[in-house]
Amino acid sequence: MQPNVVLDHSKSEGAQAPSWPSRAVPRGIAARALRSFLHAMGDPPISFDLWNGERVVPSAGRPVATLKIADARTLAHLILRPELGFGEGYVDGRIEVDGELVDLITAIDQAQPAPWAQRVFNRGRKPRRNSLVGSRHNIHAHYDLGNDFYRLWLDPHMVYTCAYYPTPAASLADAQVAKLEHVCRKLALRPNESVVEAGCGWGALSLDMARHHGVRVRAFNISTEQIAYAREQAAREGLADRVEFVEDDYRSIGGTYDAFVSVGMLEHVGTEHYAELGRIIARSLAAHGRGLIHTIGRNRPARLNAWIEKHIFPGGYPPTLGEMQAIFEPFDFSILDVENLRLHYEKTAADWLAAFEKARDEVAQRFDQRFVRAWRLYLSGTTAAFRTSLLQLFQVVFARGRNNHIPWTRAYLYE
Amino acid sequence: MQPNVVLDHSKSEGAQAPSWPSRAVPRGIAARALRSFLHAMGDPPISFDLWNGERVVPSAGRPVATLKIADARTLAHLILRPELGFGEGYVDGRIEVDGELVDLITAIDQAQPAPWAQRVFNRGRKPRRNSLVGSRHNIHAHYDLGNDFYRLWLDPHMVYTCAYYPTPAASLADAQVAKLEHVCRKLALRPNESVVEAGCGWGALSLDMARHHGVRVRAFNISTEQIAYAREQAAREGLADRVEFVEDDYRSIGGTYDAFVSVGMLEHVGTEHYAELGRIIARSLAAHGRGLIHTIGRNRPARLNAWIEKHIFPGGYPPTLGEMQAIFEPFDFSILDVENLRLHYEKTAADWLAAFEKARDEVAQRFDQRFVRAWRLYLSGTTAAFRTSLLQLFQVVFARGRNNHIPWTRAYLYE
Repeated sequence: MQPNVVLDHSKSEGAQAPSWPSRAVPRGIAARALRSFLHAMGDPPISFDLWNGERVVPSAGRPVATLKIADARTLAHLILRPELGFGEGYVDGRIEVDGELVDLITAIDQAQPAPWAQRVFNRGRKPRRNSLVGSRHNIHAHYDLGNDFYRLWLDPHMVYTCAYYPTPAASLADAQVAKLEHVCRKLALRPNESVVEAGCGWGALSLDMARHHGVRVRAFNISTEQIAYAREQAAREGLADRVEFVEDDYRSIGGTYDAFVSVGMLEHVGTEHYAELGRIIARSLAAHGRGLIHTIGRNRPARLNAWIEKHIFPGGYPPTLGEMQAIFEPFDFSILDVENLRLHYEKTAADWLAAFEKARDEVAQRFDQRFVRAWRLYLSGTTAAFRTSLLQLFQVVFARGRNNHIPWTRAYLYE
Repeated sequence: MQPNVVLDHSKSEGAQAPSWPSRAVPRGIAARALRSFLHAMGDPPISFDLWNGERVVPSAGRPVATLKIADARTLAHLILRPELGFGEGYVDGRIEVDGELVDLITAIDQAQPAPWAQRVFNRGRKPRRNSLVGSRHNIHAHYDLGNDFYRLWLDPHMVYTCAYYPTPAASLADAQVAKLEHVCRKLALRPNESVVEAGCGWGALSLDMARHHGVRVRAFNISTEQIAYAREQAAREGLADRVEFVEDDYRSIGGTYDAFVSVGMLEHVGTEHYAELGRIIARSLAAHGRGLIHTIGRNRPARLNAWIEKHIFPGGYPPTLGEMQAIFEPFDFSILDVENLRLHYEKTAADWLAAFEKARDEVAQRFDQRFVRAWRLYLSGTTAAFRTSLLQLFQVVFARGRNNHIPWTRAYLYE
């Protein structure tokens, strides 16, 4: 079991006693500050119960939830650094939510903050660098929490990226299988072709490609636990001769391949490395090769939520389609197909959240209540962010510019 | 009949006698200069017969065509301004091509010029501005050549944009009908919805939407002849109460609509106006509205071929997907779907070219041989540019970021 980074970070900042006593804040001051803050944030329909018995209700409309604030320090943190303050206050139990967490975050995301407020609340943030060493640290922090932990709430194939629900009624398990197949179809795989996967998670896609499409796969990942799991799976299924799992950075990819695929890695790459990633793809893809990048994205450039970036995805950054062009344009790749599966990720995250809640007692045994609260918040926030379109999910299919061996239409994807 | 801009431009520059006599160029000099030039251009497999009997053959491989150069001035123009020099020399008959024009241009497009050569040959070019007045002039020059002219070689619905061939064996007429339907499906039109079309050509899409999907349409175009034709069609079909053709610039669009569509206009807008276009769409699209932009594009930013820009599409510029984000990102539009139909445009242009060649005697009677040569070159160059991936065809579907009434999957497009 790896050290729990989420826990460590939170503890270091929020778990002490407040440094100044809440009773020193005169009545009315806290409520007035909170009202001004809420107004700057676009008046989300939320009520607040403060430690001193004061209550702040929305200026209009029914509240979707009530936040109970334990002390003045928690309120100050919330007002001065809303994203961190809410996340850390919630994890510490100094902010309790009476109502649905997803609905609460949806209401916050849907409010339209004043432009100055957005600038102020995002000041002074520096992302962690995704250098070779930095990436290992960043990835380790999230993906090496233990395969047993993820097994509690992911689908049976352990796919930790957006699923593809043929219909909204499909199960998560079926939707992840459908996603693997959707990706394989988009890559137009043929038997005995070679594929390289950058960032392979627990290996579900690589194994599926070898199993159902007869291709040979080299799959890269720097998460120790994920690679170990993937190798075990390959051995168990007798696929070890067709799928090679390499514990290494995508920057170490060598050789040429008929297909390049990366599902859920680009979020961890960082825009400053996109040209490098493009160069790696350009040297790895055969003349008639196909490529697919599946990534969380944005409509407009924006930093990740500060709490998510600090405690859940250090170094994470979801790009816009425009920012992604730094991968493609310099190397004359043709974008052939872009599909936005935003609503599928809302549903995926909601399904994860429901499974996580079912398993929360087991999670609490392995970790503790603060860990449970952190992951509940992360999965709730993810659900809300895709629901409110703060986040997108792009599947981008591309090929070399001069490759005319490309599908005539997309009808074959839907046969 | 409108004045023929193509003809006028060409005449003003290339039709005089050469200003210095070809016989003054010593033997060997011209051939040597040409060889150096061809090497800088990446050694395309082309032979040359010069006016003085000298012959230049490719350094390697079989030539795809032979260019007969009539005089030294034509060669100098070709070497100093390759795109203009070739186009104007060909139109003037001072360059004759022995071989297939499409194959010749394909070979030129596929050659890899030295980086310095690309810089040198694109120096000093200024695009014409697409201001309100400039746009009228630029559009008038191309689209008001007379509906009778376009009727000679377009499909029966007069659709002058990339078709959608369900299979490569489909006819142009069927493929244009399929394209109209493909666009309508992507827009998920419902009866009695309202649609605004920016740049409607001869009205085929607007009429099709009203006819088959029961929507009301306002369609904008600044080409006088096209609007007149479109109105006639609407009246003839009894659709004048459902389709309003407005002879005005897209910047005059008012009102709100359930769908925004623009097919083949963005090429004429110019990147400096993309934010303005985005603002117009943002104010015109209903909360649950869908948008589609169909445009010629690029893998990498590049100016239009100099001859095409000067003589065929003044002010034209095909953008990259990255450049197109200036329309979408500032207004929080979500890109839902991008399809690249490059090979369909190669086939469309080839079908146009074949129909044009069948009608060339009639075209020559209306205009003259120089006009025939100019349009043959333009349609051949277009075919080659899509074949070699110098040009792309993007269909981009988008919606407001916060609109969750979007299709669940794309399967409905292929039912």
